[in-house]
Amino acid sequence: MGMSLIPEPLDKQTFTPFGDVIETQNATEFSINEGTTTRFHDLAKVDTAADGGRPLISIFRGQPRPKPIPLRMMERHLIGSQAFMPLQNRPYLVVVAKAGDTVTPNDLHVFLAVGHQGVNYHRGVWHHPLLVLEPNSDFLIVDRGSAEMDLQEHWFSDDQEIFEIP
Amino acid sequence: MGMSLIPEPLDKQTFTPFGDVIETQNATEFSINEGTTTRFHDLAKVDTAADGGRPLISIFRGQPRPKPIPLRMMERHLIGSQAFMPLQNRPYLVVVAKAGDTVTPNDLHVFLAVGHQGVNYHRGVWHHPLLVLEPNSDFLIVDRGSAEMDLQEHWFSDDQEIFEIP
Repeated sequence: MGMSLIPEPLDKQTFTPFGDVIETQNATEFSINEGTTTRFHDLAKVDTAADGGRPLISIFRGQPRPKPIPLRMMERHLIGSQAFMPLQNRPYLVVVAKAGDTVTPNDLHVFLAVGHQGVNYHRGVWHHPLLVLEPNSDFLIVDRGSAEMDLQEHWFSDDQEIFEIP
Repeated sequence: MGMSLIPEPLDKQTFTPFGDVIETQNATEFSINEGTTTRFHDLAKVDTAADGGRPLISIFRGQPRPKPIPLRMMERHLIGSQAFMPLQNRPYLVVVAKAGDTVTPNDLHVFLAVGHQGVNYHRGVWHHPLLVLEPNSDFLIVDRGSAEMDLQEHWFSDDQEIFEIP
């Protein structure tokens, strides 16, 4: 049995080293459309243009993993950002570590996002693949498309202590 | 009292002249994250790079207008696309007309989107500002940011018959 990592609430300030929290709270806002709409403006740094990349819009449909959830690996996208916005107002888990050449289990930070919060991982930030809490949980994704793949996985070794989310 | 325009259901094929419908149906999909996630891939043409533009992620919060809703004006973005994805699984109205120098009331098409369908207006496509059906309806927006504004409004003249959504 691994050591437990207890999720902490997600907020913009704490998440700054890893990326953006996409939410209306503390956002720049203005009124448009004859006063019928509020625009919460420019909530995430979309960083997809390097090396001939383009922004993609996709939908991810996630299934929950059995609990406790062991955190055995992390991944990163070195050339582009990746944004996740929940589409059914359901909470989900976010596991990140700062950008860097390598990552260890001790570098991990675990957040519990509420259903109106999206996240945008900046280039190079280590993150665990999507961790949802209910079946068929959908997210809108904005990430980088290009001819070549931009995905690196890092699996922890057998002699490293693995943390788990209870 | 104006003539009524009855909304038709939104689907990818009918919407092709105006842009993309962002939904999982009939999408290219593949399995990722050790089989825990399905990726419905590249659902909209994000067209934000012209003239030094960049993709923005924002949230719009819309309020309903009183019914019947008169369709007195349309707007367009000549340099960039604009995507809307509902965040609370609520239906909403979409009013569009083909890209072109001008637009008349007779050019309008009205669609009823269901709550898991987003739309992406292609560059230059005339569209009505956001029309939601319930208070505080939130959408994730992906559009173009730049130093200058990219918005043209066209108000119909007094001698044109105005249509309305009942």
